[in-house]
Formats: sequence, C-alpha cells, structure tokens
Amino acid sequence: MDQRDLIKTIVEALCGQLNGEPPKTVSIPVGVSNRHVHLCQADVERLFGEGHQLQPVKELSQPGYYVSRETVTLAGPKGAISGVKVLGPTRPHTQVELLQTDTFLLGIKAEVRESGRRAESQPITIVGPEGSVTEKMGVLVAMRHIHTSPVEAQRLGVHDGQVVAVRITGPRAGVLEQVVIRIAEGLHTEMHIDIDEANAMAIKNGQTVELML
Amino acid sequence: MDQRDLIKTIVEALCGQLNGEPPKTVSIPVGVSNRHVHLCQADVERLFGEGHQLQPVKELSQPGYYVSRETVTLAGPKGAISGVKVLGPTRPHTQVELLQTDTFLLGIKAEVRESGRRAESQPITIVGPEGSVTEKMGVLVAMRHIHTSPVEAQRLGVHDGQVVAVRITGPRAGVLEQVVIRIAEGLHTEMHIDIDEANAMAIKNGQTVELML
Repeated sequence: MDQRDLIKTIVEALCGQLNGEPPKTVSIPVGVSNRHVHLCQADVERLFGEGHQLQPVKELSQPGYYVSRETVTLAGPKGAISGVKVLGPTRPHTQVELLQTDTFLLGIKAEVRESGRRAESQPITIVGPEGSVTEKMGVLVAMRHIHTSPVEAQRLGVHDGQVVAVRITGPRAGVLEQVVIRIAEGLHTEMHIDIDEANAMAIKNGQTVELML
Repeated sequence: MDQRDLIKTIVEALCGQLNGEPPKTVSIPVGVSNRHVHLCQADVERLFGEGHQLQPVKELSQPGYYVSRETVTLAGPKGAISGVKVLGPTRPHTQVELLQTDTFLLGIKAEVRESGRRAESQPITIVGPEGSVTEKMGVLVAMRHIHTSPVEAQRLGVHDGQVVAVRITGPRAGVLEQVVIRIAEGLHTEMHIDIDEANAMAIKNGQTVELML
C-alpha cells in the first residue's frame, strides 16, 4: 500500500467512526436491584435474636446469593421504609444500599459509592423484631456495576475496578457512564442497576445493554 | 494548502475528536418534575365543583405556569397515589404525567411519550373532593425535553421537535438521548426531566447539563 492509499484508508476508518458506525459492543444482561440490606452475623443476631440464621427463600441470579425470609425497617430523621429485603449470605460488614429516592424520604444523605467501600455517613437505624442497630459506615447508593468472572473479563478485555460505559436503546435511550467492573470467580456476566436507573432508562430486569469497548 | 497538508489537517481534526476532545456543547439548566396532572376546565369543575377555578400557590420557572392549591388522588387497579399536584393554567385536554415508578404502583401501563400527544392507555381514575374522572387518552410518562424560545433555538441551532442528547457529569455521569426540543414564544431554555431520571443521574433541580451539538 503506498502512502496515499494508507492515508485514504485511515481517513475512511476515522470518518466511519465519526459518521456513527457503531463501535465494538458486547451485550450484557441487566439485573435491577431494589433497596436492600446485607448484614453481618452479629447484626443478624441483634435484629432477629441470638443464634438466628438467615433463611434463604429465593436464589439470586449469581450463584450462592439469595433473598432471605427476614425483612427490616430502615429509619432516618424524616421517615422510615419497612419490608426491606435482607440479602444473604452474611458479610463481614453490614451494608445498607438505598435508592437515591429513599435518601430524601429517610432524610439521610448517602453518596454514590462502590459496594464494599466503607465511609462515614449520617446514621441510619435498622430495625428488626428483636432489636435495632445503627449503621453509619455502610450506607450508600450503589455505584452501577458489571459482575463478571476472570475468564469472561479476559474475553471482554476488562480488568477489575475498570470504569466503563454502557449504551441502552429504546424510548429512553442513553449511555450510562461510571459503571465499575467487578471480577470474582464463579460469577456470570451481569450488569446491576437500581430501580431509579431502570425507570429512567425504561429498561427492565433481563433486558440487555451494550458494553461500549 | 497543498493536498498533503489538507489531508494532514483532516486527519488531525478527526484524530482530535476520536481522542476525546469535547464536541461543542451548551450548558442548560435542569428542572426536575414530580408526577403531576394538567386539567381541562370541565374536569376542574367535575373534580372540585361547578364554576371552580384553579388557585395558583407557586409560580413555576416558566412564565405563566403555576402549581395550584388543588391536589388529586390518582387510582389504578393496583394502588393509588394521593396529594398529586395540579399544574395550571388549565389546558384543552386533561393529562396525567406519571413517573415510571408510579406505573407499577398503580398497575397502569403508560408509554414514554411527548407531552400533548394523546394516545389510548389503560384508564386511570382522577379523584377530587367533588367527583372523579376517568382518563385514558392523556396518560403518559413524559419524554424528557428542552423548552426554549424561537430566538434561543436559533442561537442553539435546533428546531422544534428535534431529538437531541445531553451529557451529565458527576458520580452517575452519562448521556441522555431521546430529548425532544419544544419551542414556544416566551419560554426560557430549560431541560425537564422527572424524579426517576434525576435520581438515576444524581442530578438536582437547578444543576446544568450539556446539550451535545
């Protein structure tokens, strides 16, 4: 290829991208989360009684994770939300994952943060039938994320903690940026967004989004 | 400029865009809407009594528009929402603007549609102190939109009905596509999104978004 042909090829490739030819994308199924709580075993016992164990009632899409029979009430200075699901298994630290909508109802400021990252917030009270606990290190609005396994991550060309963007089509189409990749053995590839995000983008549980690579 | 220089300039310009140089954007303030109702005068009288006039209590950002003292209950087969604000002035047709969240609570399927476009949906009952009305042509989840005046539209280079995209920065950054331009005399430039969209993108009333041109 001579120099002129080379330049022509480059210009055509660049023009193609600028003219809206889609970049390489991969379809990822979406799971929509409602507000929920993860509890440490000590807090399970404070809320539900000594020696209590969470009772699984429904498996979640990721292997080993489940919705428990137990529910709690979340209370803040401006309001309370009852019937909040507790997800199992127990974790080393209790974590309360709110919708942004809930933060206004409860009167609790909570930042958008990656699950598992602990930081101080206003205290939130978790109420169970046998007691209550006050949590202020594990309160957050979950940063949207994509779970995947090491093998799948390699195929996708992403690394743990990488922040990516996904495109959603339909009547409320758009691009969600600030999506963090979370790699763990045994998980299948799935994007988790919350109800606020699903409603804003008119997308439902089980639909797919396009990972933009 | 000889041919080689011309090609070099084109390639550099294209590379610049591909390397993430921001496209031309314009900042637009955002107004966040909750669920609300617009009523025709006949429905005002059916709900609040013969000869009743809406009582303005708070001006909206766009001149001539207001929140009225009157509120209604919206009822569907699965639930009801009370204290829903009625916005004035009255319109030729009654219109119920729901959040997507509400559609699940009420058990009413409603499509994302431009305000003012009438189409049949499942019936929703609007309840007032003096009566109720059933509406099924004006029930929708509002398509996100940008209000502007003819003069401003010319400056922005947009036309009525054009569908544009806006970019939002911050912890839940992204691009909202399917934003319709609505031009009317006397309106200032403002993007309207609903609470679901504001929460999903972590944006508040009065913040700005970038119109992507």
